[in-house]
Amino acid sequence: MIIVLKPHSSEKSIQSLVELLLSFGVKVQRNNGVDYTVLALIGDTADINVAPIQQSDIVHKVIRVQEPFKRANRLFHLEDSVIKVGDNTIGSDTFTVIAGPCSVESEEQMMTVAKVARESGAHFLRGGAFKPRSSPYSFQGLGREGLDILKTVGKETGLGIVSEIMSMDDVELFHDTVDIIQVGARNMQNFSMLKELGKVDKPILLKRGLSATIEEWLMSAEYIMVNGNERVILCERGIRTFETYTRNTLDIGAVPVVKKLSHLPVLVDPSHATGIWWMVEPLSKAAVVAGADGVMLEVHPDPENAMSDGAQSLKPAKFASLMRELEILARTQGKKIIDKKETVTWLK
Amino acid sequence: MIIVLKPHSSEKSIQSLVELLLSFGVKVQRNNGVDYTVLALIGDTADINVAPIQQSDIVHKVIRVQEPFKRANRLFHLEDSVIKVGDNTIGSDTFTVIAGPCSVESEEQMMTVAKVARESGAHFLRGGAFKPRSSPYSFQGLGREGLDILKTVGKETGLGIVSEIMSMDDVELFHDTVDIIQVGARNMQNFSMLKELGKVDKPILLKRGLSATIEEWLMSAEYIMVNGNERVILCERGIRTFETYTRNTLDIGAVPVVKKLSHLPVLVDPSHATGIWWMVEPLSKAAVVAGADGVMLEVHPDPENAMSDGAQSLKPAKFASLMRELEILARTQGKKIIDKKETVTWLK
Amino acid sequence: MIIVLKPHSSEKSIQSLVELLLSFGVKVQRNNGVDYTVLALIGDTADINVAPIQQSDIVHKVIRVQEPFKRANRLFHLEDSVIKVGDNTIGSDTFTVIAGPCSVESEEQMMTVAKVARESGAHFLRGGAFKPRSSPYSFQGLGREGLDILKTVGKETGLGIVSEIMSMDDVELFHDTVDIIQVGARNMQNFSMLKELGKVDKPILLKRGLSATIEEWLMSAEYIMVNGNERVILCERGIRTFETYTRNTLDIGAVPVVKKLSHLPVLVDPSHATGIWWMVEPLSKAAVVAGADGVMLEVHPDPENAMSDGAQSLKPAKFASLMRELEILARTQGKKIIDKKETVTWLK
Amino acid sequence: MIIVLKPHSSEKSIQSLVELLLSFGVKVQRNNGVDYTVLALIGDTADINVAPIQQSDIVHKVIRVQEPFKRANRLFHLEDSVIKVGDNTIGSDTFTVIAGPCSVESEEQMMTVAKVARESGAHFLRGGAFKPRSSPYSFQGLGREGLDILKTVGKETGLGIVSEIMSMDDVELFHDTVDIIQVGARNMQNFSMLKELGKVDKPILLKRGLSATIEEWLMSAEYIMVNGNERVILCERGIRTFETYTRNTLDIGAVPVVKKLSHLPVLVDPSHATGIWWMVEPLSKAAVVAGADGVMLEVHPDPENAMSDGAQSLKPAKFASLMRELEILARTQGKKIIDKKETVTWLK
Repeated sequence: MIIVLKPHSSEKSIQSLVELLLSFGVKVQRNNGVDYTVLALIGDTADINVAPIQQSDIVHKVIRVQEPFKRANRLFHLEDSVIKVGDNTIGSDTFTVIAGPCSVESEEQMMTVAKVARESGAHFLRGGAFKPRSSPYSFQGLGREGLDILKTVGKETGLGIVSEIMSMDDVELFHDTVDIIQVGARNMQNFSMLKELGKVDKPILLKRGLSATIEEWLMSAEYIMVNGNERVILCERGIRTFETYTRNTLDIGAVPVVKKLSHLPVLVDPSHATGIWWMVEPLSKAAVVAGADGVMLEVHPDPENAMSDGAQSLKPAKFASLMRELEILARTQGKKIIDKKETVTWLK
Repeated sequence: MIIVLKPHSSEKSIQSLVELLLSFGVKVQRNNGVDYTVLALIGDTADINVAPIQQSDIVHKVIRVQEPFKRANRLFHLEDSVIKVGDNTIGSDTFTVIAGPCSVESEEQMMTVAKVARESGAHFLRGGAFKPRSSPYSFQGLGREGLDILKTVGKETGLGIVSEIMSMDDVELFHDTVDIIQVGARNMQNFSMLKELGKVDKPILLKRGLSATIEEWLMSAEYIMVNGNERVILCERGIRTFETYTRNTLDIGAVPVVKKLSHLPVLVDPSHATGIWWMVEPLSKAAVVAGADGVMLEVHPDPENAMSDGAQSLKPAKFASLMRELEILARTQGKKIIDKKETVTWLK
Repeated sequence: MIIVLKPHSSEKSIQSLVELLLSFGVKVQRNNGVDYTVLALIGDTADINVAPIQQSDIVHKVIRVQEPFKRANRLFHLEDSVIKVGDNTIGSDTFTVIAGPCSVESEEQMMTVAKVARESGAHFLRGGAFKPRSSPYSFQGLGREGLDILKTVGKETGLGIVSEIMSMDDVELFHDTVDIIQVGARNMQNFSMLKELGKVDKPILLKRGLSATIEEWLMSAEYIMVNGNERVILCERGIRTFETYTRNTLDIGAVPVVKKLSHLPVLVDPSHATGIWWMVEPLSKAAVVAGADGVMLEVHPDPENAMSDGAQSLKPAKFASLMRELEILARTQGKKIIDKKETVTWLK
Repeated sequence: MIIVLKPHSSEKSIQSLVELLLSFGVKVQRNNGVDYTVLALIGDTADINVAPIQQSDIVHKVIRVQEPFKRANRLFHLEDSVIKVGDNTIGSDTFTVIAGPCSVESEEQMMTVAKVARESGAHFLRGGAFKPRSSPYSFQGLGREGLDILKTVGKETGLGIVSEIMSMDDVELFHDTVDIIQVGARNMQNFSMLKELGKVDKPILLKRGLSATIEEWLMSAEYIMVNGNERVILCERGIRTFETYTRNTLDIGAVPVVKKLSHLPVLVDPSHATGIWWMVEPLSKAAVVAGADGVMLEVHPDPENAMSDGAQSLKPAKFASLMRELEILARTQGKKIIDKKETVTWLK
């Protein structure tokens, strides 16, 4: 960490700042310029709280040399994290596909989608049981009943189950039902819940907040990891910008940035990023070649009658043809979607 | 609600859409243009879920004529809401001042600030006991001990207490300790918590999310209100934009917009909006004349040694002089900060 | 166009609005709802000025059904535009590559890059002669001398030349020197210059403004086209958002959106979008599969000593290997970079 | 300027970087840390081009201590700039009011507005003769005829004239017609035009670009100043954000920031910032108390029939009452709008 002091700082103030810094257990090197003085901290600064330094009257700027996250940091974990979930593996040479409708509506609906998903080679089934809706008047999901349906369908089809948690009081419930617990964009900085999820023995799929910087997103991963759960999967799902044609703007550049800064796997959700079904294909393909470890796609047997987000859902046939395209692209990148060919008719 | 259909929609699809609409309990008027058909819904559409309509294949655009919120809507509540909190009143001709440090650090610190606050005419004392910090390594607040200090200091000085809740599991605890429960920007769409707060008999100070539109903010208020708690106070605290000089960008225009759309009182927090203490004065003054019902200001007896956000905190003397300026401006707008002159030395 | 009127609009005001609308040469259908009245315009509304309608006291909302651009609109030009530039073709099954340094520095530098570019299969050479720099103290480019160098190098290597115009007074100069005239992001709404470029017989590469919506971008294309020059090539180069890790945020979703709304070819510039050389590879690859018609890449023989934007420039070897990857991906999308194999050593 | 080098930079690379730095005419102090080396530049660094430094392979970060602008910098010009325009003064204790319609439509229209403006105490009359419209199909202004009307009306009423220039070819024309040449938001980084305006002996009103940072805005002022014209007036007019209720978001905080960083006067344009007439009053009032040197307001005798931007225009009566409110607030801030009482009926 480099601390640039304001010109004409008094020797007394500098001394007391240096003492504060030493109290963090680092060494302090001082460089007296003509106009300004620079303090360089030597040692591990990842967990130093910058606030009390920045608010000192004599500090012009604090520059972190080390990123403020540690467990999520590639610097301290050079190899890509590979996350085991049942028979599936996220990261490494697998390109993971999570597919399913926005909301769980019925067992029949989920079973239809699950069969399509499995048939095309997807690894996980997604479906919302508790839905974060900006309006209290919108459909809020089936709740526990939805989770039960997911569990049943997962068991029957062999697909892993991913579902979004909305309340820290449901951590145990989710632990007992799903294979990956999803944290939605709106809860990315629900720190109380993140702490609870750090104590759970289940992988967490952490979506990026609508206006979260990449650093803040990784700091939220750090919250989970520092509390004991290292199995965090990141998911870019579009950020809020001035553009109104799409619901959000997919930050495809976040994929290589995250891969550089962190060892955690990163997925892309083009359905929520755009809100438009016909954009899912080109953006899923972009995700593969930009280095993502997978995609999360909305698929619905009957989008026109979906209870939420039908406009961004693929129909089964479209999804199936997209999967073939993704498989081809994944292979050009040294990855693959499908391993166990026996379950996938079109690859046999 | 107006629904514009795509050109060449089949009569059959139109019929089935009309049936869906009728099921919402509204009348549907149909207008057949040469190129497109328009459906107008007649009746109360505030709580209609737009999603299943928008995702219909034949729908070009859905235009709400009525705002999607109802209890927060001025249309159905023409008078300004005036919220009673103990002896204090928020809204109407009062310009409310909430002052205090970012974090509760000790009883001594809080007592010092509280005396300054009361002396200058502030109505409420703020202080964070549970702190939402983007880094798990930053000071997380004193927790319950902090709340106890707040309660003690509030009792002793007669100031109302405002503190931020971070977890839905703490609702009861906050109910028993503070006078106003604050929901921070990062939890504005923590819907599970909003629902719980709807069942509490305490006013809720709802901060605007970093990237929340005004409509989404009012929808979050609606979540609380529809669950039974009508005493919601809004607080604009800066939005995230591309500008990096200030921490966030104060959306001063949100004040008149909220006053137009809603009957709820709206405060402004210039400390968090900018992160810079010398901007608090001009922006507090702007808040008064733009029509805000009050301000929330960070004041710390010793900002250089604050445990969080010292850079945006006013020193007591600066705060005291600002209060006089705000009183003068409030009077030009038909409002006043100070009612009970006996406690305020400089007004006597 | 659909115009929703405010409740309780007087019959007299409605009549005078209808007269205004009829004066635009369209038919007006009126739909009287219980609470509000809707007017639907029938006919060609693409060039109707919405402003005087929107500012009417009785208008609640104006909804365009037809996009406000016409010549750039795919609705009126179903086939993709294919733009001929010398021996090259932009659009259709060609994936165009424009490569070169940010600034022209010397003939030697340009010749080195040009040979690398041609050798790897690029079609055009880019280089700035006039540089838009936010600081008046930064290197402003070689000016006319730079253009002369570009012309010489273009002639010698057979590569087409692309360079950015900064001043409407240079239109003739550029017409006589380059093959494609580039309009930079900062001049996307320099309407006086766009009009002049509409009168020129050269293709225009129109970069998207830093905060321009896709619609505004297409409207700027329309400015050029309506003035007589239909050969417009669009180029997405990142938009300004809150994220600070990258210089801008590449809006990869803009590619499929533009392809849907317009028949014009669209390129992607990942170098300016990110400002980071190691992000150019993944994002160029994303551009290919998202449907772009080409990329514009910064390549510099010696980035460390570049006079501008070295940090985002690829070295020749990296560029060459990227070209092979792009060729492979382009082929998966039914496109190709390299046609004339004789000039490209690695494809022989 | 502080340059933080990457860990393990080779001594040879450091030496060659130091040589580059010395070539800029500054001294270089070197600080060798354990993990990284820091170079501090001593001397005047305001006009050093950071690009070639940043793109060095061994540079981790460049931190400017000195702002990158010089003539616009308060550091080198402690006193507020006061700009004389005819009999009027912008800056110091004057709160300047520029009023008028978006577009010049006719002499009669301008004369009506001018009389209202003068009567209420405004100093300048604004009106667009050349209009920057995002659509080529929108009204583009009366052009030269519009300027002639402005000149005539200005002479007759004694009001100064402000109008927006759209093309660098019109610099002479504007010089001979108006009192203040306005540069619109879309041309804030039209550097060729800024350079020309640097050679003119007329004050320039420089609007902030829609997505320009405060620093970029001041750099554009620097372009004009460094070319010889020191009379630059800044104007905040709203920035582009995700919020869609208002056309743009007024960045009221930019006012105190600009006053801190620069000695130039700064105005606020609430009409363009919001696009909504009823927001002009609260935001104009906010501008006064936030420290602005004036406001630019749209006033139209008949907004419903305005040829552009009627929705954001005040009617004469509303404008007149607002002027009284602004006068009262200006006096609380040690400023005044009206000096020569003889022309203002309501102040007599």
